[in-house]
Amino acid sequence: MKATAELQVVPIGEGVSVREEIRQVIGLLDGHDFLVETHASGTNIEGELTEILSVVEEIHTRLHATGSVRLLSYLKIETRTDKTPTLAGKRL
Amino acid sequence: MKATAELQVVPIGEGVSVREEIRQVIGLLDGHDFLVETHASGTNIEGELTEILSVVEEIHTRLHATGSVRLLSYLKIETRTDKTPTLAGKRL
Amino acid sequence: MKATAELQVVPIGEGVSVREEIRQVIGLLDGHDFLVETHASGTNIEGELTEILSVVEEIHTRLHATGSVRLLSYLKIETRTDKTPTLAGKRL
Amino acid sequence: MKATAELQVVPIGEGVSVREEIRQVIGLLDGHDFLVETHASGTNIEGELTEILSVVEEIHTRLHATGSVRLLSYLKIETRTDKTPTLAGKRL
Repeated sequence: MKATAELQVVPIGEGVSVREEIRQVIGLLDGHDFLVETHASGTNIEGELTEILSVVEEIHTRLHATGSVRLLSYLKIETRTDKTPTLAGKRL
Repeated sequence: MKATAELQVVPIGEGVSVREEIRQVIGLLDGHDFLVETHASGTNIEGELTEILSVVEEIHTRLHATGSVRLLSYLKIETRTDKTPTLAGKRL
Repeated sequence: MKATAELQVVPIGEGVSVREEIRQVIGLLDGHDFLVETHASGTNIEGELTEILSVVEEIHTRLHATGSVRLLSYLKIETRTDKTPTLAGKRL
Repeated sequence: MKATAELQVVPIGEGVSVREEIRQVIGLLDGHDFLVETHASGTNIEGELTEILSVVEEIHTRLHATGSVRLLSYLKIETRTDKTPTLAGKRL
């Protein structure tokens, strides 16, 4: 099932700047067969729902492995049956 | 990896009341090995991250199969390495 | 206009535990004419929309004054015209 | 206090397409002294926190007046004291 999504990962207790962790997140997203659009408060993703969901676990696993103690992820997922969901189709 | 999560599923275009769809969501969550706490704006979940993520796809698949055309899910996920994340531990 | 809401405040860079900041948030919410229901991933609020929105600014102002450098708030708001929105009415 | 924010407004029960309502939301945001960046799953806003919060009430009021029965808004707000929060500063 195709989906569009928005993901924001928030490391807690890493210091005020979390730029390095966000770079890791985007690097992991780029390793998948997604359309990825980064914006100021998260990253929009278009792809297979199964793969979008599994990358969230991959991100948590990797960031914990590289030192993040506490991670919050905010994920919005959208699917629809009347047409293929795309990021392009969600723009006005 | 253990996680705590909050899930809110929003069917779009089903009419103003979405109570029936929410009952289905909770029924599907109850079929898993989760600790589930429903509240007024979503459902808190404690369990294995892999299983929490896969139930989101199960929910979208089932609700689309029973007639929902457009579905938005809002998922917050939390994991931590300093202690096991639990819903009980997140209460003040 | 009456509204129901969910508020989660996330201090960034304060250390892994943010319990003290969350206590402050709930203390500030309790100072208003709201119905407040705290759960494991946020606080549900029933009250006047104007007052719900203004307490968010009060919370950011107070937490910054007591030392928080960076604050993220996640606010869900719901209003409806067919009946008065209540937390009780959103429970199944 | 300056803030950055992301706003997503979801009309429930209006039909599967909510494009017309989203156009109204963006029109209302454009009437304020904000920097506005629309993306596929919401609109990022930079401006005064007081004004960002008050436009949310303005949006609910206007959309209800033009026929929306039930509205959900998802608002992320970020403030910080170490530097002025800007949308540009949140891009990698």
